[in-house]
Amino acid sequence: MKNKLRMGMVGGGIGAFIGGVHRIAAAMDGEIELVCGAFSGNPEKSRASGAELGLAPDRCYEHFEEMIRREKRLHPDKRMQFVSIVTPNHLHFAPAKLALQNGFPVICDKPLSFNMKEALALEKLVAQSGLIFALTHNYTGYPMVKQARQMIRHGELGPIRKVVVEYPQGWLSTPLEQSGQKQADWRTDPARSGIAGAMGDIGTHAENLAEYITGLQITELCADISTFVPGRRLDDDGNVLLRFENGAKGILHASQIAAGEENNLNIRVYGEKGGLEWRQMEPNTLLVKWLDRPTQVYRTGVGPLYPEAQAHARIPAGHPEGYLEAFANIYRNFARALRAQAAGEMPDPMLDFPSVRDGVRGMRFIEKVIESGKSKQKWVKF
Amino acid sequence: MKNKLRMGMVGGGIGAFIGGVHRIAAAMDGEIELVCGAFSGNPEKSRASGAELGLAPDRCYEHFEEMIRREKRLHPDKRMQFVSIVTPNHLHFAPAKLALQNGFPVICDKPLSFNMKEALALEKLVAQSGLIFALTHNYTGYPMVKQARQMIRHGELGPIRKVVVEYPQGWLSTPLEQSGQKQADWRTDPARSGIAGAMGDIGTHAENLAEYITGLQITELCADISTFVPGRRLDDDGNVLLRFENGAKGILHASQIAAGEENNLNIRVYGEKGGLEWRQMEPNTLLVKWLDRPTQVYRTGVGPLYPEAQAHARIPAGHPEGYLEAFANIYRNFARALRAQAAGEMPDPMLDFPSVRDGVRGMRFIEKVIESGKSKQKWVKF
Amino acid sequence: MKNKLRMGMVGGGIGAFIGGVHRIAAAMDGEIELVCGAFSGNPEKSRASGAELGLAPDRCYEHFEEMIRREKRLHPDKRMQFVSIVTPNHLHFAPAKLALQNGFPVICDKPLSFNMKEALALEKLVAQSGLIFALTHNYTGYPMVKQARQMIRHGELGPIRKVVVEYPQGWLSTPLEQSGQKQADWRTDPARSGIAGAMGDIGTHAENLAEYITGLQITELCADISTFVPGRRLDDDGNVLLRFENGAKGILHASQIAAGEENNLNIRVYGEKGGLEWRQMEPNTLLVKWLDRPTQVYRTGVGPLYPEAQAHARIPAGHPEGYLEAFANIYRNFARALRAQAAGEMPDPMLDFPSVRDGVRGMRFIEKVIESGKSKQKWVKF
Amino acid sequence: MKNKLRMGMVGGGIGAFIGGVHRIAAAMDGEIELVCGAFSGNPEKSRASGAELGLAPDRCYEHFEEMIRREKRLHPDKRMQFVSIVTPNHLHFAPAKLALQNGFPVICDKPLSFNMKEALALEKLVAQSGLIFALTHNYTGYPMVKQARQMIRHGELGPIRKVVVEYPQGWLSTPLEQSGQKQADWRTDPARSGIAGAMGDIGTHAENLAEYITGLQITELCADISTFVPGRRLDDDGNVLLRFENGAKGILHASQIAAGEENNLNIRVYGEKGGLEWRQMEPNTLLVKWLDRPTQVYRTGVGPLYPEAQAHARIPAGHPEGYLEAFANIYRNFARALRAQAAGEMPDPMLDFPSVRDGVRGMRFIEKVIESGKSKQKWVKF
Repeated sequence: MKNKLRMGMVGGGIGAFIGGVHRIAAAMDGEIELVCGAFSGNPEKSRASGAELGLAPDRCYEHFEEMIRREKRLHPDKRMQFVSIVTPNHLHFAPAKLALQNGFPVICDKPLSFNMKEALALEKLVAQSGLIFALTHNYTGYPMVKQARQMIRHGELGPIRKVVVEYPQGWLSTPLEQSGQKQADWRTDPARSGIAGAMGDIGTHAENLAEYITGLQITELCADISTFVPGRRLDDDGNVLLRFENGAKGILHASQIAAGEENNLNIRVYGEKGGLEWRQMEPNTLLVKWLDRPTQVYRTGVGPLYPEAQAHARIPAGHPEGYLEAFANIYRNFARALRAQAAGEMPDPMLDFPSVRDGVRGMRFIEKVIESGKSKQKWVKF
Repeated sequence: MKNKLRMGMVGGGIGAFIGGVHRIAAAMDGEIELVCGAFSGNPEKSRASGAELGLAPDRCYEHFEEMIRREKRLHPDKRMQFVSIVTPNHLHFAPAKLALQNGFPVICDKPLSFNMKEALALEKLVAQSGLIFALTHNYTGYPMVKQARQMIRHGELGPIRKVVVEYPQGWLSTPLEQSGQKQADWRTDPARSGIAGAMGDIGTHAENLAEYITGLQITELCADISTFVPGRRLDDDGNVLLRFENGAKGILHASQIAAGEENNLNIRVYGEKGGLEWRQMEPNTLLVKWLDRPTQVYRTGVGPLYPEAQAHARIPAGHPEGYLEAFANIYRNFARALRAQAAGEMPDPMLDFPSVRDGVRGMRFIEKVIESGKSKQKWVKF
Repeated sequence: MKNKLRMGMVGGGIGAFIGGVHRIAAAMDGEIELVCGAFSGNPEKSRASGAELGLAPDRCYEHFEEMIRREKRLHPDKRMQFVSIVTPNHLHFAPAKLALQNGFPVICDKPLSFNMKEALALEKLVAQSGLIFALTHNYTGYPMVKQARQMIRHGELGPIRKVVVEYPQGWLSTPLEQSGQKQADWRTDPARSGIAGAMGDIGTHAENLAEYITGLQITELCADISTFVPGRRLDDDGNVLLRFENGAKGILHASQIAAGEENNLNIRVYGEKGGLEWRQMEPNTLLVKWLDRPTQVYRTGVGPLYPEAQAHARIPAGHPEGYLEAFANIYRNFARALRAQAAGEMPDPMLDFPSVRDGVRGMRFIEKVIESGKSKQKWVKF
Repeated sequence: MKNKLRMGMVGGGIGAFIGGVHRIAAAMDGEIELVCGAFSGNPEKSRASGAELGLAPDRCYEHFEEMIRREKRLHPDKRMQFVSIVTPNHLHFAPAKLALQNGFPVICDKPLSFNMKEALALEKLVAQSGLIFALTHNYTGYPMVKQARQMIRHGELGPIRKVVVEYPQGWLSTPLEQSGQKQADWRTDPARSGIAGAMGDIGTHAENLAEYITGLQITELCADISTFVPGRRLDDDGNVLLRFENGAKGILHASQIAAGEENNLNIRVYGEKGGLEWRQMEPNTLLVKWLDRPTQVYRTGVGPLYPEAQAHARIPAGHPEGYLEAFANIYRNFARALRAQAAGEMPDPMLDFPSVRDGVRGMRFIEKVIESGKSKQKWVKF
């Protein structure tokens, strides 16, 4: 019998955006059940949030420390089995650390932490504890992203020469943070977001996607980082030249002042034999382009696809799966890995998910891209 | 506190397509919990399915009769609060009838029933019982479908003149049913599907979508119904001329032998002042076309939208919501209506869902379109 | 040395739409030179038009009779070598007949004539004279239309089962003809357009395209023909069920009241093995869809293409060729056929163009579709 | 009466790509007539080319010097009225100089010259002579490019913040030049192309388009210039960070090794109030994006458009005009300017075309982008 895995949540109180996403993602495949939470720094709000979510009052905690301490004392058949962290960046480290130290696996929103030091500490803790740690770089959960990665891995495009990854958004074109809008507020605040604004919030997604799909690491970058909106304290736009370990060249640009853009993450990769193009806003389509023969439109559910791609779709072709399903894939794969570990089995290699290593790499990207933005030197080593 | 509504399911055993969809849809918003089921005509399979889903053994029933009878005897705080029916067409009527007769609201897959007689009987039962009955014409759950309906309702396009609704699929281009493929098998079997194949399975979705978006009823039709695959016992293609109550003209065509098409439901509506176009495979986009000014690209989450559209999106613009989310909207709205009824309140009119009346209309469509296909007369009254 | 072929034009005075198109199409490839014309029923306007076009005053005629009579008397090295007819429908027959009777080949705008009787008379005259006659069903001049035809001809899609051809326009959504707009004026006037409005003007293009691409003839049709704009004297919308000689089924709809549509001619064809889709507004793309493998995006200039497609493109892939180039292909092919005939050679079979037979078929379509629109019987034999 | 302007051509012999394009572009609107040419450095080939084009033998010259000298001696009513130069880059300067020195206006392919020195000399000569000089940056001839420029000029998008201009092609992904392919051969040869390969051939188009549409000048750039194909002697890829005079930031990348790309020039511009997107391969569409209201799809021929856009379309909306028409717009506008100058009138300001100043700017771009590619310093002043 398949018992649901019991999840405790840190952050994600009423009105939060990403907390709700995590809950839907966790619920979708019927493998995970929310059993407790410390949803807000405000105890009342935390309790109200828990009540709204149908939790028992005694599983709604005032603080993550209380949650971890008390849950640990519960009977193993009742207590939470992992912690989901959905707070702003500056509040990732403390609960993650405490959870790991108390034997709870963690799934954490990105970027990994507030700064590089925390990231390295977490990496160490994960290694020491042997616990599973997942980072929700959710865009890698799409079936067509898996397909893209496998096509390159199997050499279908030949050696990679050029990568163009973009993440334009327009929602911070105006000083929205001055209106008190919650999402804008903390993302533009150095005390909660860290040294980067757009480059941390979405630039890291772009970096992660490029490295995930190509299987190549960025080795050098050259960045022009800007803050366009007067009064804003962190970057809202960045243009970056990239160099990859194999000699490939690339461009990464991310923006939150690209007026009129929604959430237009996209990537193009060109090899010696062909190229591919994927766009998050139409995620079930992967264009594969060839030298002097027709472009192919790969689609979720239309075979033949690599098994890695097939393993991340739920419904037949033409029934669009979207952002929440890709996000749920991360949770599903994390849950499967937890079950495998509990059973003493190897996790299914097809059901991968971003790890603390991806998180460290993302924090390095933030550090280096901001450093480059301030530098007069052309290239900064990654 | 928001307790989850307790759902019992009829059909949807391991390996079924639509049963899994219903379960994800029900789970997504955290408002519904599956507590029991009669998942298969085969008792062992039913029990195995329930176990796989994490249900207690004593809530996995051998037959829907047993389920309804026994659940009824459970304490009101424990027993299921509604029945979800996800069986093939010929097995909708009996469980729906029994559920209604025993005071359980029903949410049922489409088409409503095996034939018109059953449909009318259900309509009567729903009226007599005062119970809520939902039919999963899931495509009307998309935000941009709601937006389209409201734009027409508010006269933005002027009086409607022409409607083109299409539902091409290609998956039955070969005699797939002869391979034993489960979905193909029952859909092409008159004993389980009814008098229609493609026209019942997907033609009814097209008919429902056209009437839902335009707010107009079809009054006459003229159909050319075909079976292209040798040996197939039901139609796999149909082309239909439509006339609407207000004098508008239309075309409806549906096919399961449109080779290379996935699930390409789409609609275009033209009024005196403008037209609109919506395509299920890119469901977050609604094109609105005008006389001599630029076409507008309405998008889920990009304002201003009608509140009816906004009420059916969960996440910000550019984070694609798809088939499962639209399906979940039907479940969410059904659940909200149940809660409102339980509380003696009026349901929120924005949170609408297809009812038994839509189901009767769909069955009438099946009856008339097949009748017209056999007729030498041009027009058949709807 | 390649002398240009000398063209005389009937119709197409200042302010005409299609006359200018014919002139650009004739000029584009440097094979044809306009040397004379009877551009308008108004002698002054005809002369002014000729002057504007840089013609010598003595080659600007008051009437096509004068033009044909006088040009015939000129030295063979100077006189026009063929006649281009670009008048409204009711003025195709007389000049075409006179030209053929006097030994001049003809290229004529569509539809062929005002009525069926004229069409048959022209067909006879062409046969008797042995002269070349081209009809400007220009949409068949696109490279990707040629490619589509060849793919079907070579069996790549298998036997054809279903055809959907659409021609929605919106420009006559209002009673534009009442404003005196020239194009609307004659197209909605039975005395100049014939028995059909939209079905003659654009429905024939759709019919021609469907038969050209599939290589199949329509054998039966069932039409619902409408006039939506009050006061309009001819149809502005039509929905038609089609049956083809091989058992394929189809839909043709054309409209000039599809508000917000520009010139959206498009076609989809489905065979047993795959389907294709072409849209005139993005004419350099041909989608080819397959059973359970990725759709292919065929593009003008991206190999491998059939030689018939390659022979109708001028510039490399990605340099879009459009309406005028496709139109010019008809003129170029007509010119090549004239040269071949003059040289006593067979014309290049790849450089085909619509003939008087296509014109007769188009007139038959107009006759039958209007007949069906008035009939209570379902099917009218084509 | 409108006599055609008489054109002499330098280069463009049989088999050349761009020469044929220039001839079609010149012929299309019936305002220009090719009367003579020095089509090849090979006298026989030049003569054969002229004969193929229907020119009199005595107007087919062995060399451009002969052409200019002899034509000058012809009667003003017969001699060529301007020179079109369509040779490879290293052969632009000499004929342009000689033409200007002998009183002939010039229309010249891009880039302007082989190097900066030549460019400045030509700029001076144009100024001294008072003659009209056009450069065929043909992509600025599209109606939707004109519309984009005017929208920005009129402040519809607000102050510009970000520009992304791309020009990916894939046709040089392999060492095509080693096969003797003519286009690849000279474009990859420093002796004929100059210091740049892809950046000169297509990078300059991107630079020109960005400055034309935004009305802003690039002031600094930072480039990563690559040669991916072994043995190639010039760059085949470049990624460039841009800074504009008003503080806007940008990215320009151009490639000829973007495998599977055709001729995918495209640009996105973001201002404070909105953004726009134009793609050369679908040139009749201009997307205009807004903060929190629906994106608009501007289309050639669909009003309201700026008169500058309308003045560059020939046929109604939905009848696609493409590359050749945009190219013809440059010729048409150049011809109109010549006529205006001849008549002592001011040229129509709506009918603009790229000038020698654009050419100098393009040469500066080539110089600076190659310099930056070799530099370890981040920014190079433009």
